[in-house]
Amino acid sequence: MSAEIIEKQRAALRQRGLDALVIASPENIAYTADVVVPSQAIVRHRLVLCLVPQEGAPEIIVVNIEESFVQENSTIERVIAYNEFTEDPIQVLAERIQAAGLGRGRIGIEHTALSIKSYETLRKGLPQATLVPIDNLLHELRMIKTPSELEKLRQMGKAAERAARSAFEHVRVGMTEIELGQLITEAYLANGGDRLTMLVVGAGERSGFANAAPTRRQLRHGDIVRVDVIGTGDNYYSDVARTAVIGRATDEQLRAWSHLVEARKVALAALRPGASTRAMYQRYAEQMERWNLPPIKFLGHGLGLTLHEEPYIGPYTDIQLRPGMVMCIEPLCWYPEHWGVQLEDEVILTGDGYELITDQYDESELYVIPA
Amino acid sequence: MSAEIIEKQRAALRQRGLDALVIASPENIAYTADVVVPSQAIVRHRLVLCLVPQEGAPEIIVVNIEESFVQENSTIERVIAYNEFTEDPIQVLAERIQAAGLGRGRIGIEHTALSIKSYETLRKGLPQATLVPIDNLLHELRMIKTPSELEKLRQMGKAAERAARSAFEHVRVGMTEIELGQLITEAYLANGGDRLTMLVVGAGERSGFANAAPTRRQLRHGDIVRVDVIGTGDNYYSDVARTAVIGRATDEQLRAWSHLVEARKVALAALRPGASTRAMYQRYAEQMERWNLPPIKFLGHGLGLTLHEEPYIGPYTDIQLRPGMVMCIEPLCWYPEHWGVQLEDEVILTGDGYELITDQYDESELYVIPA
Repeated sequence: MSAEIIEKQRAALRQRGLDALVIASPENIAYTADVVVPSQAIVRHRLVLCLVPQEGAPEIIVVNIEESFVQENSTIERVIAYNEFTEDPIQVLAERIQAAGLGRGRIGIEHTALSIKSYETLRKGLPQATLVPIDNLLHELRMIKTPSELEKLRQMGKAAERAARSAFEHVRVGMTEIELGQLITEAYLANGGDRLTMLVVGAGERSGFANAAPTRRQLRHGDIVRVDVIGTGDNYYSDVARTAVIGRATDEQLRAWSHLVEARKVALAALRPGASTRAMYQRYAEQMERWNLPPIKFLGHGLGLTLHEEPYIGPYTDIQLRPGMVMCIEPLCWYPEHWGVQLEDEVILTGDGYELITDQYDESELYVIPA
Repeated sequence: MSAEIIEKQRAALRQRGLDALVIASPENIAYTADVVVPSQAIVRHRLVLCLVPQEGAPEIIVVNIEESFVQENSTIERVIAYNEFTEDPIQVLAERIQAAGLGRGRIGIEHTALSIKSYETLRKGLPQATLVPIDNLLHELRMIKTPSELEKLRQMGKAAERAARSAFEHVRVGMTEIELGQLITEAYLANGGDRLTMLVVGAGERSGFANAAPTRRQLRHGDIVRVDVIGTGDNYYSDVARTAVIGRATDEQLRAWSHLVEARKVALAALRPGASTRAMYQRYAEQMERWNLPPIKFLGHGLGLTLHEEPYIGPYTDIQLRPGMVMCIEPLCWYPEHWGVQLEDEVILTGDGYELITDQYDESELYVIPA
């Protein structure tokens, strides 16, 4: 798979007149080298960098303590290790760029991922190079998924949906949000997921917070329970939200729910190549206004190696849908500190419509957990 | 707790002649505002920023979708929300700095946490301010823990130790690394932890990789099983590594293990205020060389809101230990793709020595899981 992606990147390099890409963000490292280096996310100075030249072999630069792991797992064969305490990875990178004869080249860099400190070191190490921001280019490349990416996303989406359903079936009044989170985690792992990166479990008043991690709050009669199964498998994200009620929902909650079901139906029916994301959002916003539900800034977003990526279905950008995009559609309604309901599915855009990844769940009724 | 920390930060500001701090890294946001904003780590453009002026109220700037959560959970009362799609958080920050009358001030910023893009926007929004890197200052402030930080770290360290022990007691041959990881997770959560941020579970040849996440590899007779319980509770880290063998270890493995036990004993005996981290490391390095064990770049590190922080016990820096530091001591021996053993404990530096946080485990013998 990686060879295909590096070919895509090189075609983009040629088109933009660039001599090389420097990749620094975890998601683009995963894209380029098919590896996530475990400590990158939590030890900030352990930079991981990929150098993808127009011609010649790509290289991956990693801290020596992760060298063996990367040798084993990366699809990029040339692994350059640096000593965490005595070498600056950016200086190592600058030397590799010089060694490749690109010291005067046009080098694409990630403006949103490289720190000021890294930039200053790179500037000093490559005084004659032209450094060009390529963040948007990398976003665009990742927007259309390869068949192997689609297969991973399909699996993870289904795992998340099953995990939410199975947890709702096994949870009991009196358990805590954390215990419900554990039920989700077990089922997610059993279905092929690797980890929950931002599991959301909110009961009662906590269901109204956007991204609330599970706490020791107990589940009580009358609670709305909202879960959002955000995790990864093989580095690819799942993002599926489901809502249940313990016992009986209020009329107001049932009314909001039935509107979300309607909004979902309308949104799914609009999914086809060429559809405008802005038009989809506008229709949704009008519905929500008509129903007097609180406004939300988007109806959906792309999904892949990151949780949120283009195309967003919102008011601020307008993108034409294309086959191979993977998206979340998530009508929701939150009253912070009171309650919130949400219905989030995953789809793949196809040549003539969409494939519903999360197809196991009948959403016409709000799931009821016995009180 | 937060008032005490903001006071520490202000004293440092005065000492360095700075008018305000801009905090951008997740760990320093947690330190300053006692909150971790759920989506910050995984949606990169959702910046969270704290502005701590020399005088006047501190502010926290967050994406609007997280506003209610931050209102509820942050110890900083003034919450400024921005629209994710139409406003640039750095521009909002620059306006707040101008509004505070600090447009010509000396502003401390995190060079390793702010992106080039953010820096350029800030530079443009504050053309007359002086922007000063303060990364090291923030490291230093966090090195000595407050009593409330010590209590959190103590609880999490003990939770991690108990989780490793309990998992070793319940794991069985034929289970997978992921299933062992689940046993650890359950026990960690039951003991007060919130999440495993980088759980390491390596069996057999995988025990030799530094930070290997659990896989579907089954546990077999003769495997070395190395776990490193890296997680957080109340935002504070635990980092405790334990090793077991299934059935019988080889003589070579037992020899390495007994040396680690000896190295640990010597390292703990050296812990007292005024001790030199470099001298501690040198002694360790000499031992490892004498025993013909593979060299490792450090013997320990500080622990707190991040997994690795100063003081490192290594060859490259020399810091005098002081009461209130929390550290991991981790003699280890890795043969990548063969096996690895590790023994990692947590300690608090006290007025006359140390308090062993991880005190439940008799390390004189390698833990044996029945084959």
